[in-house]
Amino acid sequence: MHTMSPALSAYLETNQSRFLDELFQLLRIPSISTLPEYRADVERAARFVADSLGAAGLEHVAVIPTGGHPLVYADWLHAPGRPTVLCYGHYDVQPPDPLDQWVTPPFEPTLRDGNIYARGASDDKGQMFMHIKAVEALRAVSGGRLPVNVKFLIEGEEESGGAALAGYVAEQAAALRADVALVSDTELYAEGLPTLCLGLRGLVYAEIEARGPAHDLHSGVYGGAAPNAVYGLVELLAQAKDAGGRILIPGIYDDVAEPSADELASWRRLPFDEQAFRQQEVGATQLTGEADRMVLERVWSRPTFEVHGIAGGFTGAGSKTVIPAAALAKVSLRLVPDQDPARVVRALEQWVAASAPAGIQASVRVLSMSPAVVVDPGHAAIHVAAQACAEVFGQPTVFIRSGGSIPVVGDFARHLGIPTVMMGFGLPDDALHAPNEKFRLGNYYTGIRTVAHFLQRYGAAH
Amino acid sequence: MHTMSPALSAYLETNQSRFLDELFQLLRIPSISTLPEYRADVERAARFVADSLGAAGLEHVAVIPTGGHPLVYADWLHAPGRPTVLCYGHYDVQPPDPLDQWVTPPFEPTLRDGNIYARGASDDKGQMFMHIKAVEALRAVSGGRLPVNVKFLIEGEEESGGAALAGYVAEQAAALRADVALVSDTELYAEGLPTLCLGLRGLVYAEIEARGPAHDLHSGVYGGAAPNAVYGLVELLAQAKDAGGRILIPGIYDDVAEPSADELASWRRLPFDEQAFRQQEVGATQLTGEADRMVLERVWSRPTFEVHGIAGGFTGAGSKTVIPAAALAKVSLRLVPDQDPARVVRALEQWVAASAPAGIQASVRVLSMSPAVVVDPGHAAIHVAAQACAEVFGQPTVFIRSGGSIPVVGDFARHLGIPTVMMGFGLPDDALHAPNEKFRLGNYYTGIRTVAHFLQRYGAAH
Repeated sequence: MHTMSPALSAYLETNQSRFLDELFQLLRIPSISTLPEYRADVERAARFVADSLGAAGLEHVAVIPTGGHPLVYADWLHAPGRPTVLCYGHYDVQPPDPLDQWVTPPFEPTLRDGNIYARGASDDKGQMFMHIKAVEALRAVSGGRLPVNVKFLIEGEEESGGAALAGYVAEQAAALRADVALVSDTELYAEGLPTLCLGLRGLVYAEIEARGPAHDLHSGVYGGAAPNAVYGLVELLAQAKDAGGRILIPGIYDDVAEPSADELASWRRLPFDEQAFRQQEVGATQLTGEADRMVLERVWSRPTFEVHGIAGGFTGAGSKTVIPAAALAKVSLRLVPDQDPARVVRALEQWVAASAPAGIQASVRVLSMSPAVVVDPGHAAIHVAAQACAEVFGQPTVFIRSGGSIPVVGDFARHLGIPTVMMGFGLPDDALHAPNEKFRLGNYYTGIRTVAHFLQRYGAAH
Repeated sequence: MHTMSPALSAYLETNQSRFLDELFQLLRIPSISTLPEYRADVERAARFVADSLGAAGLEHVAVIPTGGHPLVYADWLHAPGRPTVLCYGHYDVQPPDPLDQWVTPPFEPTLRDGNIYARGASDDKGQMFMHIKAVEALRAVSGGRLPVNVKFLIEGEEESGGAALAGYVAEQAAALRADVALVSDTELYAEGLPTLCLGLRGLVYAEIEARGPAHDLHSGVYGGAAPNAVYGLVELLAQAKDAGGRILIPGIYDDVAEPSADELASWRRLPFDEQAFRQQEVGATQLTGEADRMVLERVWSRPTFEVHGIAGGFTGAGSKTVIPAAALAKVSLRLVPDQDPARVVRALEQWVAASAPAGIQASVRVLSMSPAVVVDPGHAAIHVAAQACAEVFGQPTVFIRSGGSIPVVGDFARHLGIPTVMMGFGLPDDALHAPNEKFRLGNYYTGIRTVAHFLQRYGAAH
């Protein structure tokens, strides 16, 4: 078993509290990319990341303006003959609401029970920052050199479906040329179990608006004869799935590829406690979805239709007897191989047009779309990454998929022709996108260590 | 044909602009009873009404505190041997949202095209105020005397389903003793057509809450296996009605009484232009509801299930991929004779308990309930009122029902044993409960005139 150099180990240990202080500074910036009122904070987070890259010894550090939020770029390219790793992460975060459910405020990072509680702790500030600290440590103990060439590309629109990054990757394909990408925006399958993610679901995110009467009507005077926009939207959305969770939008399953028998078999071997998953992670009386599929299939390799939010009519305190004129739902479909996002959008639009109830005008506005991706486990970088993880953790690496979406992984495959090592250190109960998001403190340090070890291993393999 | 005294006519004409100024003062007070932050304004409106009653020469003027918003009482009881009329109205109003759809601000009353635009112009400040001005005018031209005894009872919780008034009527039945009640909170069937309302629908208003996971979840990580509270609520609500508008909640139609053949026949004789109703009043591409019933039946004599508002999950700008933990809908059932509100509540609760989708905990919170009422057209006061209306308008009076609810009419019947003359001067397009609520200026004056004439006629008939 390959062991880490004592100098590197010592450096990582000596600098733990500074590494944490710096991450806390970043977590304090409310860089909520989807809410326009946080634009200045998003910019501040970009500059913080750029400064951190500069302090770690990276070169060509740049905060690159886009039509949306800025990208941060940096590189170090002085390892001729060695491969180039493109490190990706994002410095933006999801909105923190519902605020009243946070034990400590989302943008005041707090250590509790060995966890860092903050919006973005795990997704993705904490994990993105591990890459920077790993590179800093490697340079510090090697006279300013690195075992591989690295390029950093950190974005600020991952949580808002921004289009800037995809365009940048397409246009700057030559400048971004690399052998592999490294993304830490996934999770360990379980605490202590080294994990590489080999697949991500894609996403079509859209708003569906329903309009009924020209303006809100008195429900006494018109109730019984006038269409109700909220109820019309309810009737429409209810037709999207059957009681068993199967999507009823015509054509949705046409291009769905099943995982290979080998992959399915490997998922069946993973430890999975459905009752603990239901009670401790989901916290519901029952799980839902396609009963003939195991839970890991449902969340990793099956498309979904979800309503993320709905609003319409009067929802203040007390009672108002109105027939609402308009209602809006935010919905998404998670996509799996080999679904084509554009084709799914067409299916959604056709279904909405065909299914709106009498008297209701329904329309679709697509906010973002990205395809699913899968990574070939036979690729050399995946192989080295699996070994590096196993060595740091002292356990064989397991291969999973994630039900989430990281659109850039598809962009890297499409425009740069490279696979992505998805090496994440979050945990399943990190409450991503939810109140009380956390990142295990120990996993922050183990992540820095594992990333550094992977870069050494990957450089040495050439 | 009975004609009004020249002195009364002259007084009403001479004081028109003052009557309007005073109403504008009342309309400027945002007495929104359902929103706690307007409590002081509601109180201010109560005092304004009390002062107006005092200025009109009424006695025993009192602003009566309740557990909710105050009641205003006043009387004049110096016409021995003459009947007593209990005048009811409400000084509270519905919330004005959506604010951005008002042409002029809801609490800055504005004259435009012969209409008074303001929240409460028609429902019910303008109509309630007509009673006060009619009494003022009658006293002014009769040496301080009135043709009947009058009691005024004006409430501040009609729009918020408050319980204060019902309790007060029950407890103070002896003090409120009267021969008939007079309520102007309904409308003319059409401009120029004198109209008495003989029936009102009742109401059960409730919130339905759905809970799924313990907290909001990441829709990538859990989508496909975790219950979604918004979608669960959507699935539940969609089961409430079929595509034809028939309510599917078991037992709802058990006690529904059909209107008499005579009443139905009189409705069929009313001028009704379904296309104008759809295009100009409702403003939708299609009407909905029970296709085998004419529109007037659907809105006057059939129960309804409506969703007034719905909220859950993320509805800010942009995209957030969350599986929401909770969602809420505000719903109501309009009731018709002989439905029992308590029985309807039980049916609603049982249906919600039985129909919640897998993994969803659904609960019902009832905010208010009141039964439907019908008035006997053979009652003497109704007869006199119909004559008085016909004389002022120069047209035969038509008899309608209203699909709305005025719970106090049922309380008067139950606790005082008296019928209610529902003599309203609003118009079908007054946009009650909606943006740009209005009251036709001419109908404000005609209303004062008609109420005064009715009181004279009713006193003279004894």
